[in-house]
Amino acid sequence: MAETIIKVDLKESPYTNEKIHNRWHPDIPMAVKVKPGDDFKIECYDWTGGQIENNDDAADVRDVDLSQVHFLSGPVGVEGAEPGDLLVVDILDIGAFDESLWGFNGFFSKKNGGGFLTDHFPEAQKSIWDINGMFTKSRHVPGVEYAGLIHPGLIGCLPSKELLDEWNTREKALYDTEPDRTPALATLPYAETAHMGTMQGDAKEKAAAEGARTVPPREHGGNCDIKDLSRGSKIYFPVYVKDAGLSVGDLHFSQGDGEITFCGAIEMAGWIHLRVNLIKGGMEKYAIKNPIFKPSPITPKYDDYLIFEGISVDEGGKQHYLDVHVAYRQACLNAINYLEKFGYSRAQAYAILGTAPVQGHISGVVDIPNACATLWLPTDIFEFNVQPGADGPTVELDGSVQVPLAPDLE
Amino acid sequence: MAETIIKVDLKESPYTNEKIHNRWHPDIPMAVKVKPGDDFKIECYDWTGGQIENNDDAADVRDVDLSQVHFLSGPVGVEGAEPGDLLVVDILDIGAFDESLWGFNGFFSKKNGGGFLTDHFPEAQKSIWDINGMFTKSRHVPGVEYAGLIHPGLIGCLPSKELLDEWNTREKALYDTEPDRTPALATLPYAETAHMGTMQGDAKEKAAAEGARTVPPREHGGNCDIKDLSRGSKIYFPVYVKDAGLSVGDLHFSQGDGEITFCGAIEMAGWIHLRVNLIKGGMEKYAIKNPIFKPSPITPKYDDYLIFEGISVDEGGKQHYLDVHVAYRQACLNAINYLEKFGYSRAQAYAILGTAPVQGHISGVVDIPNACATLWLPTDIFEFNVQPGADGPTVELDGSVQVPLAPDLE
Amino acid sequence: MAETIIKVDLKESPYTNEKIHNRWHPDIPMAVKVKPGDDFKIECYDWTGGQIENNDDAADVRDVDLSQVHFLSGPVGVEGAEPGDLLVVDILDIGAFDESLWGFNGFFSKKNGGGFLTDHFPEAQKSIWDINGMFTKSRHVPGVEYAGLIHPGLIGCLPSKELLDEWNTREKALYDTEPDRTPALATLPYAETAHMGTMQGDAKEKAAAEGARTVPPREHGGNCDIKDLSRGSKIYFPVYVKDAGLSVGDLHFSQGDGEITFCGAIEMAGWIHLRVNLIKGGMEKYAIKNPIFKPSPITPKYDDYLIFEGISVDEGGKQHYLDVHVAYRQACLNAINYLEKFGYSRAQAYAILGTAPVQGHISGVVDIPNACATLWLPTDIFEFNVQPGADGPTVELDGSVQVPLAPDLE
Amino acid sequence: MAETIIKVDLKESPYTNEKIHNRWHPDIPMAVKVKPGDDFKIECYDWTGGQIENNDDAADVRDVDLSQVHFLSGPVGVEGAEPGDLLVVDILDIGAFDESLWGFNGFFSKKNGGGFLTDHFPEAQKSIWDINGMFTKSRHVPGVEYAGLIHPGLIGCLPSKELLDEWNTREKALYDTEPDRTPALATLPYAETAHMGTMQGDAKEKAAAEGARTVPPREHGGNCDIKDLSRGSKIYFPVYVKDAGLSVGDLHFSQGDGEITFCGAIEMAGWIHLRVNLIKGGMEKYAIKNPIFKPSPITPKYDDYLIFEGISVDEGGKQHYLDVHVAYRQACLNAINYLEKFGYSRAQAYAILGTAPVQGHISGVVDIPNACATLWLPTDIFEFNVQPGADGPTVELDGSVQVPLAPDLE
Repeated sequence: MAETIIKVDLKESPYTNEKIHNRWHPDIPMAVKVKPGDDFKIECYDWTGGQIENNDDAADVRDVDLSQVHFLSGPVGVEGAEPGDLLVVDILDIGAFDESLWGFNGFFSKKNGGGFLTDHFPEAQKSIWDINGMFTKSRHVPGVEYAGLIHPGLIGCLPSKELLDEWNTREKALYDTEPDRTPALATLPYAETAHMGTMQGDAKEKAAAEGARTVPPREHGGNCDIKDLSRGSKIYFPVYVKDAGLSVGDLHFSQGDGEITFCGAIEMAGWIHLRVNLIKGGMEKYAIKNPIFKPSPITPKYDDYLIFEGISVDEGGKQHYLDVHVAYRQACLNAINYLEKFGYSRAQAYAILGTAPVQGHISGVVDIPNACATLWLPTDIFEFNVQPGADGPTVELDGSVQVPLAPDLE
Repeated sequence: MAETIIKVDLKESPYTNEKIHNRWHPDIPMAVKVKPGDDFKIECYDWTGGQIENNDDAADVRDVDLSQVHFLSGPVGVEGAEPGDLLVVDILDIGAFDESLWGFNGFFSKKNGGGFLTDHFPEAQKSIWDINGMFTKSRHVPGVEYAGLIHPGLIGCLPSKELLDEWNTREKALYDTEPDRTPALATLPYAETAHMGTMQGDAKEKAAAEGARTVPPREHGGNCDIKDLSRGSKIYFPVYVKDAGLSVGDLHFSQGDGEITFCGAIEMAGWIHLRVNLIKGGMEKYAIKNPIFKPSPITPKYDDYLIFEGISVDEGGKQHYLDVHVAYRQACLNAINYLEKFGYSRAQAYAILGTAPVQGHISGVVDIPNACATLWLPTDIFEFNVQPGADGPTVELDGSVQVPLAPDLE
Repeated sequence: MAETIIKVDLKESPYTNEKIHNRWHPDIPMAVKVKPGDDFKIECYDWTGGQIENNDDAADVRDVDLSQVHFLSGPVGVEGAEPGDLLVVDILDIGAFDESLWGFNGFFSKKNGGGFLTDHFPEAQKSIWDINGMFTKSRHVPGVEYAGLIHPGLIGCLPSKELLDEWNTREKALYDTEPDRTPALATLPYAETAHMGTMQGDAKEKAAAEGARTVPPREHGGNCDIKDLSRGSKIYFPVYVKDAGLSVGDLHFSQGDGEITFCGAIEMAGWIHLRVNLIKGGMEKYAIKNPIFKPSPITPKYDDYLIFEGISVDEGGKQHYLDVHVAYRQACLNAINYLEKFGYSRAQAYAILGTAPVQGHISGVVDIPNACATLWLPTDIFEFNVQPGADGPTVELDGSVQVPLAPDLE
Repeated sequence: MAETIIKVDLKESPYTNEKIHNRWHPDIPMAVKVKPGDDFKIECYDWTGGQIENNDDAADVRDVDLSQVHFLSGPVGVEGAEPGDLLVVDILDIGAFDESLWGFNGFFSKKNGGGFLTDHFPEAQKSIWDINGMFTKSRHVPGVEYAGLIHPGLIGCLPSKELLDEWNTREKALYDTEPDRTPALATLPYAETAHMGTMQGDAKEKAAAEGARTVPPREHGGNCDIKDLSRGSKIYFPVYVKDAGLSVGDLHFSQGDGEITFCGAIEMAGWIHLRVNLIKGGMEKYAIKNPIFKPSPITPKYDDYLIFEGISVDEGGKQHYLDVHVAYRQACLNAINYLEKFGYSRAQAYAILGTAPVQGHISGVVDIPNACATLWLPTDIFEFNVQPGADGPTVELDGSVQVPLAPDLE
């Protein structure tokens, strides 16, 4: 049986666990060492480190401290890994803890992070999802049940100092274009809540002050939130520092393309079972800049879809130039409008798009001025018929169940 | 056997065929009438109306007159269709003509339309693809063969006058922000090359002057270039005018998500076999703004993928804010860099991404400031092994075959 | 465009077409020659050579002369093929003729061939299926429509003289164990209705007297009736004679595993587009006795199934020993009983099992004394809901439509 | 978290666990009670109750006491279930125990049960398979790794007394036709090793003397060994006694169609997570005799296959009449011959066919006298290339690893 090389105690603060960190920095010491060919398990906090609870009150989502995220398990040192190599990671399995068989999905307040549709859902809301074997259901979103497409939202290797500097420089440049924006354009280093693993004293202070935040995906992968990086997949990560330094966290039981609700997928604590190998000099051999991966042979097969189109004309009728972001937002809103006809509240529909294995395709990006994006809604996740037909939709829900909302405080 | 209700003669100019048009306008008379429940065939020119030839010279792609596109077959009037209905279209089949079993893929010159990667491929290039039964190969792109995901790039109903006005207004507003840009931000009405079906005289002149160009996808569908709208799919179109007025063209033998080469897919002339039905009042019943559709039960199953990630940091290292367009461009460039290691020229790799059933996913759009897009490259279309491995890639091509290029004229 | 190297005229008797034959014999001369790497089209009669008509009378099925079947197109000689090679055949496409867009399914009278459930359906019945693009429907079997899994029921190379002798010897031995049985245990050579291609005179008489009948599948493939040998698949055939001698016929628009109705699938005339290549000495290299093949990348994806189990206890309650034939028969009967609850007649249900892309699995063959077979019924082919539920089935059909039956004549 | 309502201790004999039984009899008292809608976990011994060990000696497979099998967990009583109902069982998940992450596959000696190819593999052999997350590998069968298609080999409800009598009568009748046969034609009641749950004294003696053995699948399902009854599937079981009495055991990590090695799949101890519901009167409503089921939405997608054909001519060249058992055996032998060319021993190839998610199809059952069966071998489970090609196979294994064999004792 694979050894669990990093353990977490959900009743303990992640800040007291030395094998956890929440910033990217090349100086964070390896929390543990393995060899190529090894397989092992790693335990992970949920991305917020336990700030969100299994109850019917969204206040915790409203009040979340996002400067703390994401709590990552690692770094795992891989013997023999050197800059320029590819670290090949097989995700052998992922699961929730037996004592914590649930996850959460939330919309952040627009004042605290927001989300893809934050102008439509400006206040904090939360739904809780129970994990029953391979399936999940929510007491806040009736009429759907689906098999998990379980994946780590965040996984990648430590950056080199040069790469870190590049990240900080370019993100600061963007941030400075509109420093007072809410939500901010970028999350900059923030030492106060940094957790740098075993680092202490001045070294820690220095690293914390320049450690990259974990929110954006970057060249090393990181917080890609790619639903298809699921258990069973095989990933090829660029290596930038000696021993690679692989860290992982932000486990998701299920998520749609785009992770549109931002908080985000069905977020959970749990464990991940990995196997690592090396391709020496692989970055150059294969011209690798960002990670590449192969999907899992064992994923939920929801393949009867209703597909919604969106174009890059925004909600106000304004024409944008080949803007896939706007187009996908329209496709999402079209799907929400459609589901509303079957009795779902808009928040429930949004939660479904954020958590179910929805596909989001970049269908057309050259037909000026409209990008065309498509949102693929799997129909077999619904317990009733959501197909269009001559008789019109049947309203299946009576509105008695809602997604808890916590109004912004003054 | 289904009747062919619109015929084309590839040796004849589309301008002399009264059942063809190349602008959107509510006044274009129905070219033919059918009833709900009918199935029928329609023949189509390729989108350029025959400007591109089956040879090894890209001059025709360089010199193409894009003000003429797209030549559409229709409008088909459907008895009983009224504004607010949904027109349900089953695509029963699509094929090339026996005498024209080939298609073309091209990159436009940056001076004449460009494409998704126009800064990387600024000059006109062309590849020719032979159609062998359900499969295609190109003499300009060795080492790949794939089954067709045959679909119409462009299909939709006539707009109402109000909708047409809205299109023209918003697109003009965008155009006016940078009227001298090359390529232009939008294609505005252009009477000179307009083909308005049977319209003649003043009525034609007036309509031609305000008829919307066919390039962008819009609320009615139109030039969506969605590869998954393939034969076997079922589409629900909004109806805006009496009798609906369904037009179709721009047939593609195969295409990747995004149609990134712009010219674009494997473009072909051919026929399409459709069945139509109505959902009365369906737009309101299902809150439909853009078309929705269900994918075909019979599509090529290429499901072993190499997946490339891209983030919204551009080629120059500049940070963009959640820009999926930039992110997908990076994913495409990463794939091109990868394929180059196996011996492909960059133009061949680009042509593969434009024509093969590549998926483009909007994987993450909330992790500020980086959007994450993924490009899914099917590996089974290659005749040799393109998987990564410890030994590095084998160069399988000797560079003797290239994609013809026609330099810009002074 | 691929050349059509064998043509048929459906208004002409197959006996007058010298590129047709209906027996297997090494001496049948090649009807046409091709080279490795060539692709070409071949036209085919339906398996009965036109004995069954598109009408509502099953008398032609009752009175069919089965000694004539199957009319095959060929043999096609492949330059350089020698005994011991493997002939690699890519099925590039298959289609019906434009003037003949229909197929038939029938149950033979028990007195004339019978079928898998002949004791339950002892008299001749026939259903006609219209081909609409990639889909089919029947005026005799309401409520179902499906995409075609188009395939040749029969394809293979000429046997050597030694192999032919082996066939005749072993089949005669079986026949002789019960020579008076109806239906017979085997079909022996029968010169009277033999069509030996271009052979004439004594040579023809001799060959006709010993030519193997085409009904059973054998080492060379032949009448395998494997639905998955569909367009897009790649087959590796053993070669027994110089130039291989590939023949093909018995095209099916769709069929279930087992071809349980015997007549059989949706039987059609049409054309097949093939490409041939050789693996020299491949039989020995890969220890090939029977053909092997790879399935098509493009097949109808009907993958929501209701699965019926059957065990090897027969309808009378008698226990058989690991008899998969009996077990599959029970699974089929269970499915027929189930569909009857939704309003189908038993003959309609049987026709569906024979023609739809039903899977039949050998699920367990070691748990003495019961074999366990499963029949997988795709649910998405039905236009109404056939899933089980707490409320019981809804009878969707009123019994007004039936499968024509022609009673046995005295 | 779902309650574990039946627990097992692998270090304890199953005979001392009162919630275990190894015979079918209506009088076995419910071990535990649940309600419709409940979900719960059940722990299971491996089918032999721990007779086989994780080592490299096949003596335990040779000497296994098959009169003891299968050790089942249950019966679970479902409140409100009555004869004639359907018990709807959702398999929410299945797993091995953390302390027992391995399974075994074996061939029984022909003198003690045998198997599908017992004439070819007459002596006991055993391979051990390690479970690594969702995947498995064997130290005895190199070059393959696959994701688990985890399923219970055996699950079903208690028979009524009438049904039990019918089973015993018909199986005895078969047995009596050849009572001295080895292996026997059927396994008859055998009181000596019967475990009847909590039953004691005379009642137990009586029930043990007539309790049906668990080896064959029957009307209630039982030992179907259907690989597709995997986690995520939904099964509709006939109910014959008050409270239904659902029992389950014989968990498999993976298996091919037919379970051809008999011992059989990758056999393991573990737990199963179920949810139960009722369809009142469902047997009559849906004409259900045997269970029906719907496959899981989440199964390993190995869909590139090499397909081997077999016909009903046996190894000696003898012609059989439409015998699918013979035909499938030939297809299996053809696949073994093929794999041998890549360096596998015949026993290794046989073990792969028994354990991998191989499909076995009843492809043709009407073309007298030959049935045609196909064996579908997934190619993506191999770590090297097993496709046919012009250059012939590469021998990838050096024969240094073998499947342990224990010769029969005198």
